[in-house]
Parts: sequence; C-alpha cells; structure tokens
Amino acid sequence: MDPTFELVEAIRATDNAVYLLDQRQLPDIVDYLPCTTGQDVIQAIQVLAVRGAPAIGIAGAYGLWLESRRLRDTPNFHDELKKSAEQIQSARPTAVNLSWAVRYALSHVQSLGVDDTIKTLKQIADQLLAEDVALNRQIGDWGLSLFDGKVSLLTHCNTGSLATGGYGTALGVIRSLFREHRLREVFVDETRPLLQGARLTAWELSQEKIPARLITDSMAGSVMAQHLVDGVIVGADRIALNGDTANKIGTYSVAVLAHYHQIPFYVAAPLSTFDANALSGADIPIEMRNPDEIRKLRGVNIAPEEIETYNPAFDITPGRLITAFITEKGVIRPPFDKTIRDMVSGNAP
Amino acid sequence: MDPTFELVEAIRATDNAVYLLDQRQLPDIVDYLPCTTGQDVIQAIQVLAVRGAPAIGIAGAYGLWLESRRLRDTPNFHDELKKSAEQIQSARPTAVNLSWAVRYALSHVQSLGVDDTIKTLKQIADQLLAEDVALNRQIGDWGLSLFDGKVSLLTHCNTGSLATGGYGTALGVIRSLFREHRLREVFVDETRPLLQGARLTAWELSQEKIPARLITDSMAGSVMAQHLVDGVIVGADRIALNGDTANKIGTYSVAVLAHYHQIPFYVAAPLSTFDANALSGADIPIEMRNPDEIRKLRGVNIAPEEIETYNPAFDITPGRLITAFITEKGVIRPPFDKTIRDMVSGNAP
Repeated sequence: MDPTFELVEAIRATDNAVYLLDQRQLPDIVDYLPCTTGQDVIQAIQVLAVRGAPAIGIAGAYGLWLESRRLRDTPNFHDELKKSAEQIQSARPTAVNLSWAVRYALSHVQSLGVDDTIKTLKQIADQLLAEDVALNRQIGDWGLSLFDGKVSLLTHCNTGSLATGGYGTALGVIRSLFREHRLREVFVDETRPLLQGARLTAWELSQEKIPARLITDSMAGSVMAQHLVDGVIVGADRIALNGDTANKIGTYSVAVLAHYHQIPFYVAAPLSTFDANALSGADIPIEMRNPDEIRKLRGVNIAPEEIETYNPAFDITPGRLITAFITEKGVIRPPFDKTIRDMVSGNAP
Repeated sequence: MDPTFELVEAIRATDNAVYLLDQRQLPDIVDYLPCTTGQDVIQAIQVLAVRGAPAIGIAGAYGLWLESRRLRDTPNFHDELKKSAEQIQSARPTAVNLSWAVRYALSHVQSLGVDDTIKTLKQIADQLLAEDVALNRQIGDWGLSLFDGKVSLLTHCNTGSLATGGYGTALGVIRSLFREHRLREVFVDETRPLLQGARLTAWELSQEKIPARLITDSMAGSVMAQHLVDGVIVGADRIALNGDTANKIGTYSVAVLAHYHQIPFYVAAPLSTFDANALSGADIPIEMRNPDEIRKLRGVNIAPEEIETYNPAFDITPGRLITAFITEKGVIRPPFDKTIRDMVSGNAP
C-alpha cells in the first residue's frame, strides 16, 4: 500500500460543503476553498483551483449536490437543477469528464423528490470520488503489463492524486511501477504555462520519494535523443472515438517527439474520458485562456505587457501517434476506430 | 533603415571600460554592468548578463583588451595575456564564437609591443562589434532569398540586437523580411528556463512593432499542426562540419517538430560559429547549468526545493534536420559534409 499518496486530497466533502484544495498555491501553501454553491465550484474550476479531468468531474458532481441544497425550496426544483447542471457542465469546455459526471448524477435523480434528490446526489458524488481511486488503481495495474523490466518514463502535466480522486491516471501507472520496483526514474515536464508538472507532479513524486528529474518542456526531445526514457505516459481531457486525444498543451509535441524517437506513447484515462459524441479531434472544443498566463508567472512579469500571445489550454494528439490507451477495463490498442467503440459502448451515463 | 534597432545596445565601450547590458533584468530594467578587467567580463558571461554567441564573442575580445590594460606593467606581458585569453575563452564552453574572437584578436598582437597591443586589441574589438552589425545585415539579406511571398515564422531564444553586435542573426532575417513587407507574423518561443524569447525577443519585436505572438515552448507543435507557420529560423552557438548544430536547449525539439510537419528549418549564423575542429555534434561540449534555473523563476520558487533536475543549456540538432544555414557569405545547403567545408575554409583566425 501507499502510505502517503492521500496525504493531501484535492477534494473533501462534509455534510454541508465541499472543500477544494487550491492547487494554484501549491507547493508553497496548502489551502482549501470552501464551496457551498454550484457557483463556488464553477469559480474554482474556472480559475484552476481544482484541475485535472477526473477531479473536475467529481467536483462537478458535488457542485450539483450543492445546487440541490440551494434550490431545496424552489417551486420548479428539477427544472432549476437542470439549469444549474448545464452551467456546471460548461465551466470548462474541453474535459468531458465534467459533463459526463454531471449528466451521470442528474440521470439518477430525475424521478425523485427533493429530499431524496439531495441525498442521492451526495451519495453519487461520494461514490464517484471513492470509485475514482479504485479505477486509478486498476489503470495502474493494467499499465504494468505494458512494460518489461525496469523503465524510465517521461510525463507531462499532472495526472496524480491532485488531478483525480486519488492515486492518479498516468501517475497511477508510475506509482504502480514504483511499487513493483520496476521504475528507474521519471522525467517530469514542468508544463508551462501553469507549471502543473513543476508544482504538482514534482511535489507528489517528492512526497513519495519516487526518483524524478524535473525538466523544462523544451528538454523532452533532448532527453529522448539521449535514450534516457523508454516511454511516455500522459493523461487525457477528452478522447474521440478514433483515438484523437485532447490533453494539456504540449502533449502533442511530446507525442511527435516520441514518434520520431520510436518511443511508445501511452494515454492513461478512465473510460469516462472517452466521448461517444466525438468522432475525431475536430469535434473537441479547445479552451483559449488569458494571455497573462504566459506574460506573467505567479504574479511576476516575464514578458513585455504589450506582447500578443497564443494560449490554448489543450492540444489534440492524433490517434496515430498513440501506442495504446490504458483504462480501468484494460488496454486499448489500434485500430482505435474499432477498439475504442467496443470498450466504451457500456459506459454512457 | 531601422531607426530603433540599436536603441539598446548589448555592448558599449569607452576608452577605459566596457559596459555590458545586464540582460537578466530585461525587459523590466535597463542597467549596464561596468567591466574594467577580464574577470569582470568572464563573470558577466557566466551569469548570462551578456549572452548570445556573437555578443559573447565580442565581449570576449573586449575582455582581452581590458586584460592587456591591466597587465601593462607585468614583466611577462604576452605570456600573462595568453593566460588571460585562455580564461576568457573557457568562460562558457559551448559557443565557439567566444574562443574564435579571442584567438582572432590574440593572433594580431603577438609580435607587438605593450602599447601597440593595447591599442590594437581595442581596435579589433571595436571592429568586431561594428562588423557584426554589417555581417548580420548580410545574413538578413541572404535570408530573404529563402522565402516566397509573405511568410509567418517561428523562432526560439533570442538572436537579435541583444545577442549580437546589432540587428541580429535569425532575428536579422526576420527584420529584413519585415522591412520588405514580407513578414506576416512571428511566433516566439518563450525559451525556458531563462526566457530569452519572452524577455528579450518579444521585447525587441515589440519595440519595432513587428507582429509577434509569444507562446510557451510546448505550443510550437500545436502552432505547426494548425499551419500557422511557414518556417522556423534560429541562431547557433556552434556548428560542426557535418551541420550538427548546438543551440539553446529546445532547438532540437523544434527541429524534429518542423521535420514532422514538413516545414523548413533554417539556422542563421556568422561563419565564426562554424568550428573547423568539430567533425560532428559529438565534438561539441554541452554546458550543464544550475538546477535553480528550473526550480526558481526570477527568484520565485516554482517547484519543490528538493526535486532533482536535468538542465543542459544547449542541445544538438543533427544536420539532417536542417534545411539550410544562412551566413554572411551566402546560404549553405546540403550535402553539408561538403558545402560547409567549402564555405568556412577561409574563415579560420
């Protein structure tokens, strides 16, 4: 077992509130944002206090529960709840887990009375949180089957406890390899602009003494050219039916580099990340974010104020650059057009 | 003509000192470090107050002049001057322009008396500075021949006035294209860890109102996938005889990405950047730098203090990924094994 991985949880719920770890301040400050309404949760998601596709899905489900409490005495309770669900779902556009979780929760309460709705929504959110840890452990175990002997991996962004209900997706595979003494070291892309790799992944790995080296995103090619890594593993925000994958900006560059160096490139994600309505990456909306995320860094100016920027939060990695997907139900290999449909057909809300 | 490009000069000399613009503080603060000894210059080069292969070559030549002044009354003047030259040459290992310039200067004074040596070294350094602007304008003009119509380019690091005696190498080509109304826009990699793209290139381009968008290094692939750039142009710190090129870390990743997207990749550099003693990239030493360059950013912690890092200042882009070199004497195209030798044979100090 892993004694420390839940040392800091991204999401904690009590009987009347949800506390979201403010990840913007990590690793310096551990502080929780109390949320008592759906708007609080939407705000926390939009400013990236909570981030990571699975974690924002769970936060969204809790947000819906908070809304059911707030709307308790509203005449058109279910209509209003549905409106709240729509607002929460659109807090961020790219990760599909958010809308999946909210729709999943809503689908279980449509014929219930107010009190039962409130109670059921809390149970569902609690269950999504608890199940996510179990899912991630399954992903971790499936991931073991992909590697022979002792390996060094490269990862991008944060896919660990902080991005999920616990344990992590890509970082879950890394944890499982480490537990089995099959991990040499991890190269961690710092993941500009918001430095989720430097601030969050490096911090999670240090906490557990998993051997890791932090690099700038621009060093991934050099690391591969020197044969320092045997594979790349990342998470995902949304996966289309042909395998095209939206994930943190920079993932696509790493995938091209891995392809050029003939290094396998894996995507670890729960089945809720697959979008049965997206035939290809062209169907996945990409969120554009504030230029100041690039021009400033933790409040410090690092560029002229007047310079224009281009700041997409995500990019699309085409399925042809992906060696395999690692899910809680097993590994999905090409041809993705067929294999993804087979795997996800039972997972719609 | 370009009215603003020499608004801020990286290097200014008076009769008894050299002033090096402290580029670490740009774009917030414009401050010059006064240097009166070779050690002052070495220190400025090592902390990257002055950087850019051509600029540190010129600074090195001025450093040798300052040493000749300091050593004026030393009995073994020429022996001591040679020792100083060796120290200056090894201030940073990768850029060959530094040792080229110091050896070039030294070769002109070995049979001169003390006073003539001092005078000649000053003349040579002044001449290298003045000539570098002219060289860069020639590079810029040769660069025009590589592009048809109006183009968008991507660049990495800073190769502008600040990195050279003025005008710039890769940025010189960009300036020439802009002057000819043949530049649509420039995507500027921010160039972690030291952000020469964000702090220096973005600043130089803003000063001249050249249309530019700043991106994180991780966005280059996404920009190429969306067909937003027609070519990549970078500078170089040292070029081997087979075309293998050492340049700022991250250049190699950009070259692989350009190759994958079938976008031409150009290196703009004066002939003094070619090293007749390096047969391939394996002969080029790569400087490793302090982990805190990655763990901190402008004094602010951005990662756990205990995390290990990997921090090479440069990487090697193999000649096979380079479309052409742009020098002051013309464009060098493959096969580089032959064409580089032909071009550089007359340029040894």
